[in-house]
Amino acid sequence: MRGLWLEDQKLSFRDDLANPVPKLGEALIKMRLAGICSTDLELWCGYYPYHDILGHEFVGEVVEAPGREDLAGKRVVGSISITCGGCEACLAGRKSHCINRKTLGIRNHAGAFADYLTLPTGNLYLVPDVVSDDEAVFTELLAAALEIQEQVHIQSGMRVLVVGAGRLGMLIAQSLALIGCDLKVVVRREAPALLLSSLGIKSIDVSEVQNSMADLVVEVTGSPQGFALSRKAVRPKGTLVLKSTFAGDVSLNLSSLVVDEISVIGSRCGPFAPALRLLAAKKINPLPLIESRFPLEKGVEALEHARHPGILKVLLFP
Amino acid sequence: MRGLWLEDQKLSFRDDLANPVPKLGEALIKMRLAGICSTDLELWCGYYPYHDILGHEFVGEVVEAPGREDLAGKRVVGSISITCGGCEACLAGRKSHCINRKTLGIRNHAGAFADYLTLPTGNLYLVPDVVSDDEAVFTELLAAALEIQEQVHIQSGMRVLVVGAGRLGMLIAQSLALIGCDLKVVVRREAPALLLSSLGIKSIDVSEVQNSMADLVVEVTGSPQGFALSRKAVRPKGTLVLKSTFAGDVSLNLSSLVVDEISVIGSRCGPFAPALRLLAAKKINPLPLIESRFPLEKGVEALEHARHPGILKVLLFP
Repeated sequence: MRGLWLEDQKLSFRDDLANPVPKLGEALIKMRLAGICSTDLELWCGYYPYHDILGHEFVGEVVEAPGREDLAGKRVVGSISITCGGCEACLAGRKSHCINRKTLGIRNHAGAFADYLTLPTGNLYLVPDVVSDDEAVFTELLAAALEIQEQVHIQSGMRVLVVGAGRLGMLIAQSLALIGCDLKVVVRREAPALLLSSLGIKSIDVSEVQNSMADLVVEVTGSPQGFALSRKAVRPKGTLVLKSTFAGDVSLNLSSLVVDEISVIGSRCGPFAPALRLLAAKKINPLPLIESRFPLEKGVEALEHARHPGILKVLLFP
Repeated sequence: MRGLWLEDQKLSFRDDLANPVPKLGEALIKMRLAGICSTDLELWCGYYPYHDILGHEFVGEVVEAPGREDLAGKRVVGSISITCGGCEACLAGRKSHCINRKTLGIRNHAGAFADYLTLPTGNLYLVPDVVSDDEAVFTELLAAALEIQEQVHIQSGMRVLVVGAGRLGMLIAQSLALIGCDLKVVVRREAPALLLSSLGIKSIDVSEVQNSMADLVVEVTGSPQGFALSRKAVRPKGTLVLKSTFAGDVSLNLSSLVVDEISVIGSRCGPFAPALRLLAAKKINPLPLIESRFPLEKGVEALEHARHPGILKVLLFP
């Protein structure tokens, strides 16, 4: 089959890859649409050593699923952590932190930028008919946005600031807007400001960020500068959610966190079921985030394109 | 009157200080017993520029309180933040984060290492008869320990690790032991291990700290090494409470906080009322923490003594 192969930080399109064979409890899935995420770009840059097919955002169709024949032909999305079920984290219900986990297209499990992929059937979620492929491909990213609300009780009276208006920031903003809180998104460019405005969400320029202006700040730039801006904006006894990974260490004044009693909350993958419910109910509109589409065989070009600043979602089709 | 005066990082005993005069709404308090805290030692080292009488842990007797004559002769302790009542933080009920706050013996308000001090009557708490001066002088420190439970919901099934067994660490350990959680305290010396054992609390050596061994870790060393040990010990999706101030910045891998979804919670002053209730009920025993007592005129010597590693609570009497 065809796929985008990453090895020693070299990405290549290959058409000589072996078709994956589903084991009992797994499904073989034909990719219908896949999304390029910042993590894909970071893996390409060597953020984590990974040698296999890239990609973890997808919507696909089940070809076969030994032991679950009812799934054949169904349109699905899938959570990306393949867990052992037996470690302390799994037994405590924190499956996304399984110490033996493999991760689709990220760690020890071939990814979705290919004709076919496999996942355990327990990872799959049926896509409702009213959710298009273009919407469904955002399920994983929207789930990550929703994880914030799993971790922090956000009240409607709160002043909430989202720092960063990229792919994930846009979905975070839309999900937080549903709470009815006093929401603003910090942007650096006019394009995201216009897009946010069309979605009914307020934005402010970086220069308008003031000390202690927000009860809750979501940092989604992944840059030390974005972190510093976010730290400045959160008020004493407020909460700072970190939603992006950072390259390297960041120098931090821990005393100020103590004196101001700040809560810093790391946040990663989230729940698929509410993401699909919100997409089905048309409460979240990911479609304006689609910037371009490339066929799988132009995947390297697609990832090159997605690397440019300000580019939103780039999709791959078979 | 007499008092310990700090100016340009020089501490001196003086007997020529003017008696403070209480304004309407304030109480004049005669100090009965005062405690030396790490913050006093840090102020002396220049951690924050402060030029006045040092000291914020005290139990005293109200001499007079204009407008609240009923308080005269009463034994009291007092919360240390003198707040404006009108700023955003005060109006939102976060008084300890008042942006205009003065702090007893720390910022813009003369402290308790003196014959007399003043505080607003709203800051005062009557000390129950069953609570001795030796116990009451720990109220402020115990309140700081209890702040952890105001911020984090600690369940009895949790594995809790307290890193640091100094003055505050000992009270944090005692307060957390009351939850019935699986509690261990990390110690470096035999003396605190023996003291903890006498209080029925388990301790482990630094060398016994393992990766992800605790659901909740309380960092109370204030050192970068203590922070690194604490970060190592907290499990994915766990909570790390910072209870001490750190000198300088600490280099931190923020990505690991995101990937492991760690919550880092800064924690400072806490509630006096439950601290007094627990002291009155003899559920917390601070008395073994008293290491020595010095008369006020030997205060400089007392602070020199308190600086030595492993020294627990040093008290000053008039």
